[in-house]
Amino acid sequence: MKLQNDLIVRAARGEETERVPVWVMRQAGRILSEYRATRAQAGSFKNLLKNPALAAEVTIQPVDILGVDAAILFSDILVIPEAIGLPYKMDEGKGPSFDKVIENESDVDALSTENVLTELSYVFETIQIIKKNLAGRVPLIGFAGAPWTIFCYMVEGRGSKTFSKSRAMLMQNPVLAHRLLSKITDATIIYLKKQIELGCDLVQLFDSWAGILNKETYNTFALPYINQICESISTVPVTVFAKGAFFSLEEMGKLPCATLGIDWHTEPSMARALAPGKTLQGNLDPAVLYGSDELIRRETIKMLEKFGPQRYIANLGHGVYPDVDHKKLKLFIQTIQAHQF
Amino acid sequence: MKLQNDLIVRAARGEETERVPVWVMRQAGRILSEYRATRAQAGSFKNLLKNPALAAEVTIQPVDILGVDAAILFSDILVIPEAIGLPYKMDEGKGPSFDKVIENESDVDALSTENVLTELSYVFETIQIIKKNLAGRVPLIGFAGAPWTIFCYMVEGRGSKTFSKSRAMLMQNPVLAHRLLSKITDATIIYLKKQIELGCDLVQLFDSWAGILNKETYNTFALPYINQICESISTVPVTVFAKGAFFSLEEMGKLPCATLGIDWHTEPSMARALAPGKTLQGNLDPAVLYGSDELIRRETIKMLEKFGPQRYIANLGHGVYPDVDHKKLKLFIQTIQAHQF
Repeated sequence: MKLQNDLIVRAARGEETERVPVWVMRQAGRILSEYRATRAQAGSFKNLLKNPALAAEVTIQPVDILGVDAAILFSDILVIPEAIGLPYKMDEGKGPSFDKVIENESDVDALSTENVLTELSYVFETIQIIKKNLAGRVPLIGFAGAPWTIFCYMVEGRGSKTFSKSRAMLMQNPVLAHRLLSKITDATIIYLKKQIELGCDLVQLFDSWAGILNKETYNTFALPYINQICESISTVPVTVFAKGAFFSLEEMGKLPCATLGIDWHTEPSMARALAPGKTLQGNLDPAVLYGSDELIRRETIKMLEKFGPQRYIANLGHGVYPDVDHKKLKLFIQTIQAHQF
Repeated sequence: MKLQNDLIVRAARGEETERVPVWVMRQAGRILSEYRATRAQAGSFKNLLKNPALAAEVTIQPVDILGVDAAILFSDILVIPEAIGLPYKMDEGKGPSFDKVIENESDVDALSTENVLTELSYVFETIQIIKKNLAGRVPLIGFAGAPWTIFCYMVEGRGSKTFSKSRAMLMQNPVLAHRLLSKITDATIIYLKKQIELGCDLVQLFDSWAGILNKETYNTFALPYINQICESISTVPVTVFAKGAFFSLEEMGKLPCATLGIDWHTEPSMARALAPGKTLQGNLDPAVLYGSDELIRRETIKMLEKFGPQRYIANLGHGVYPDVDHKKLKLFIQTIQAHQF
C-alpha cells in the first residue's frame, strides 16, 4: 500500500522533503490518557505487549491524537532475550528483571535463535493489525534493541547505573562476550527482517546503554554487531540511536545505515561534521517540555534551525518523560510541522 | 609543613614533574578491607563521616596501603545541603535521601549559609587530624559537590536516572533555580575556604550530574557557579570534574581553575585540544580493573601515552567500583608510578 505521508522515509533516504517530519520516542506510552486506559484494560505492561489488538491500538493512538508523521510499533527491546531463552518480568515502578542471567559458556550455549519467529508471533500479529488499521496514513517504524544494550540486561539481570557486571565480562572474557553478542545479533536480524517483511517501513536500533562504554570498547563490542544488522537489511532505511555515544560518532557515520539518532548532549553541528552523509534524528532536551509554551516554541525552532530543513527527522533527544503534559508534546510536534525555514 | 611528595600540586600548577602522579576517586572506600573494618566500627556511613578520628583514619588508609600520591578527605558532597538546612539520610544499598525537598521560594528562603562553619565543624576537625597524621607525606585534597549536582539532590530528594524534577525547575522557574544555585555556591565557598585554611593542598569540585544537561543548560546553570567558586579560591589549585560534560569542555577550558578531570568517555586528545591551558586528570575506564594484570598494564600505559608526561594527574575516569580487587587497583597505581616515557 502506498503511503499517504512518506516524509520520514524520504528524509531517511536523503530525498528532499517539503517540511521536516517528526515522531517522538515513547509517543505511545504513559503520556497519553488513552494509553493508560488501554494499559489498564490489559492489566499489565507485558499483557499489553502480548495482546496484538491492544498493542496495535496504542501504536496508532499517537498518530490520531498527536498527529505525528510515523507510528512506532508498541513493543519492548527485551522480547529478544525472552525469545532466545531468557524470560523477564516487568515490575511496576521497578523496571525489568531476569531471574536467570548469563554468566558462562553453557549459559550462552543454552540460548537458541531457532524459535525467534514463533516466540515473537504476537509481535508479528500486532504489526499486521497496525498496518491494516493505519491504512497507509503514515509509515510504521519497527525496532529492536542494539546487541550491546540487550547484552547488558542479559548479563546484569536488571537496569544498573554502571552495568559493571557487563563491562567486567568484556574485560574478563571477551570471547564469551563476543559469542553472546553474536547470538543476540543473529536473533535481532531474524526479528527485524520479519518486521520488514510484514510491512515496517523503517527500523530503528536502540542502543540505550551505549554511553557507559568509551570509544574503544564501543567500537569493539557494539558497532561491529550494529554494522552486521545494518548490512543484513537492504529494503528499508535503518536508524541507529546510540544514546551517549558521542565518542563514536565518526565511526557511526560510516555505518551502512540511513539515519543516526542523536541525544540532547550532542550538538547538531558536531553530528553534521562527524557524520556528513547521514540523515539525523533528534534531539530536543525532553525537559524542555516541562517549560512554558513560549519556551517550547523557542527551543524547538532553535533546534530546527540548527539541523536545517533537509536530511532531518525531528524528535526529542530521548523518550518523552511520562509526566509531561501531552498538550506540550503536541505543541512541539505542531511547531515543527508549521515551521518555515 | 613542607610536603615531601608534592607531585600532584606541581602537576596541577603546570610545573614539570619527574613522573606522573596518581590518586584514585573513591580510593578511601569499600574496596579496602581496612575501610570496611573502620566503617563497621563506626556503625554507619554517616557515623563514620561525623567521627573525625575514624574519618581521618580512612582518609589516610589508601596512602599507606595503595601508595597513592595524595589523600582525599573522607566526606560526602551532601554535607552542604545538610549544613544549610536540608538534612539527609543514607540508607544501606539505597543511597541518600532527603525527607524535605526544595519546591518554592519559601523553601529557598528557609536555607541559611550562616551556620556552615559550625554545622561542618566535624569536617574541619577531621582535616586537622589528617594533616597532623599525614605529616606532610602527600598532599591532602579537599572537595565539595558542584552547585548543579547539589541542586539536583535538593530538588529531587534522592538519586535519579533523569533528574527530571530538577530539570523541570530549570525550565519552569529559572529565577528560583538561580537563587538556589547561588545559595549553594555561597555555602560551598565558605566551606572550601575553611578546608584550605586548615591545610587542604588542593580542592576538587565534583559535578556528578553534569552529563544530564546539554551545552546550553550547563553553560547557563552550572558553569557560572563553578566559575564563581574557582574565582574565590586563589591560594591552592582547583580541579573541576564535570562527569559527562564533554559538550562544555571548551568553556571549561576557560574556567579560572588549574585542572580538569575527564571521564573515560572523553578521549585525552579531545580534552587537550579543547582545554589546552589546563592540567588534565583521569581517565581510565574503571571497568578495566576487572581485567587481567596484563590488560590493566596495557590499558594504563595506553592512557599514560595518550595524556603525555606533563600537566597530567593520573586517575580513573570515575570512582573505583567497590567490588574491584584492591590488588588490581594497586597494580594500576604502580604501573603509573613506574612508567618511563
